Amino acid sequence: MRIVVLAGGIGGARFLRGLKSAVPDADITVIGNTGDDIHLFGLKVCPDLDTVMYTLGGGINEEQGWGRTDESFTVKEELAAYGVGPEWFGLGDRDFATHIVRTQMISAGYPLSAVTEALCDRWQPGVRLLPMSDDRVETHVAVTLDGERRVVHFQEYWVRLRASVDAEAVVPVGAEQAKPAPGVLEAIAAADVILFPPSNPVVSVGTILAVPGIREAVAAAPAPVVGLSPIVGGAPVRGMADKVLAAVGVDATAAAVALHYGGDLLDGWLVDTADADAVAEVEAAGIACRAVPLMMTDVEATAAMARAALDLAGAGR
Amino acid sequence: MRIVVLAGGIGGARFLRGLKSAVPDADITVIGNTGDDIHLFGLKVCPDLDTVMYTLGGGINEEQGWGRTDESFTVKEELAAYGVGPEWFGLGDRDFATHIVRTQMISAGYPLSAVTEALCDRWQPGVRLLPMSDDRVETHVAVTLDGERRVVHFQEYWVRLRASVDAEAVVPVGAEQAKPAPGVLEAIAAADVILFPPSNPVVSVGTILAVPGIREAVAAAPAPVVGLSPIVGGAPVRGMADKVLAAVGVDATAAAVALHYGGDLLDGWLVDTADADAVAEVEAAGIACRAVPLMMTDVEATAAMARAALDLAGAGR
Repeated sequence: MRIVVLAGGIGGARFLRGLKSAVPDADITVIGNTGDDIHLFGLKVCPDLDTVMYTLGGGINEEQGWGRTDESFTVKEELAAYGVGPEWFGLGDRDFATHIVRTQMISAGYPLSAVTEALCDRWQPGVRLLPMSDDRVETHVAVTLDGERRVVHFQEYWVRLRASVDAEAVVPVGAEQAKPAPGVLEAIAAADVILFPPSNPVVSVGTILAVPGIREAVAAAPAPVVGLSPIVGGAPVRGMADKVLAAVGVDATAAAVALHYGGDLLDGWLVDTADADAVAEVEAAGIACRAVPLMMTDVEATAAMARAALDLAGAGR
Repeated sequence: MRIVVLAGGIGGARFLRGLKSAVPDADITVIGNTGDDIHLFGLKVCPDLDTVMYTLGGGINEEQGWGRTDESFTVKEELAAYGVGPEWFGLGDRDFATHIVRTQMISAGYPLSAVTEALCDRWQPGVRLLPMSDDRVETHVAVTLDGERRVVHFQEYWVRLRASVDAEAVVPVGAEQAKPAPGVLEAIAAADVILFPPSNPVVSVGTILAVPGIREAVAAAPAPVVGLSPIVGGAPVRGMADKVLAAVGVDATAAAVALHYGGDLLDGWLVDTADADAVAEVEAAGIACRAVPLMMTDVEATAAMARAALDLAGAGR
């Protein structure tokens, strides 16, 4: 079974771990969000790709969901001693090595997709991890700070500001000019099933879909497309997805997110049992919908979610 | 008193510490060798500049003479886990931060001299540290390995090969096109005394002098020029200077090194008491020469060497 997953960071990575557990023999291609990539200290950092790679490769810091386990922060402390920041982005020593290798390879002329493959040679994530694009796309967020309108990098909004102010607009800068990375469109076309994990529908899956050609390929793919709601009981399970949903005029409800993706993309949608009353509204839009437990409390619970998504995909064929 | 010192790495840095102790109120400008700079992991590493900066700024690993004290090697281990080397160059986590800041500033368009000044803002070495040039100069060494003639970077010769094979030629690649960094020629012209510490006469002081304009400025400077022999009793005090001296056809003796610099550059030369019989030969070349203890066993012994050099400079005026 060939499965394509459009994934953001923590939520996507944890879902993938459950999916691998549910269907260990499946051929899984992950199309990873690179809109939250950021250049820090002259190094190219790809938080979502790394979170997927570290999580599936056994190197993730389980408690925080991102970054490396058994991490130290000597380099960051030394950079701060030089007065060089930002200090709000927690790059550890082990993590630095990943960004150093990536930056060196990119400077040598390798595209991000080739770099990601090389990094995965070490981590053996058990999936094929593709960046959505080899071109630079950077999600910016318009905010008002101290009465002044400013545009900040998504990471600054998410990590430094902790989404504490409203996102007035979310713009994937560069997306319009970006091309899907090699293999992305081919994987979508050849998939037996396409999954949207409970990743952020705006700044994760939405950014991937903003790369010209990807949304169209997903919509045109013969495979059923099934998503899992990142909203449970009217609130994001994790993160601050409601903030960026508001920026695109979408309510933070399981049904509203499904309708935001739309019936042209989605064949099926899973909502949490707490949102069972959303099923009728989603199905009215022509999207098959079921209510199942959607809390990724452990790998087994997550595997059950993945199985439910695959079941729904099978039913929708 | 304005003192200009042409310095390499460990020997130059330790001499400078003694000099500062001997004349704490002097205005000292250090012209540092950058010929052993190397790009590692996509980062610009300046071993000699950093050794001077760390030594005078209190951050040096005293035992080994280079690198940071209280150092860890997490980044390097992680790079090795990615299969990325070289493993023979010992970059620690604290040291990495220096190279990350430097590389980021250089990528942003700052010349090495401005970067060095910014790094010294933190370390406060108590001297003005100038790279010999903002242009890239890289010392290469011709060797025969397994019967094959090869050209290797100086660091590969010195650190990886431990100078275990003959240096057949030593070439400061790029030196001919390099310009002295801003302030270098001005400092030389304005100096009250110019000192050559017991640094390597070929790959440290020799490389600095190979930048067009610097040798000429030293020769033309009104200030007396006094050097200290890095050879004591027919062997380098530290390092493997004899190997690279052989490459330029100079014997590893205190007198031969003085004559290699030559009477057009040197006004005075200090040899170790073990080499007192070299005094007559050096003086015959028109270079004032004295024999004093030249082992930098501690700061006080080194300060005595510095005082002897300044005394000789005063006598030579």
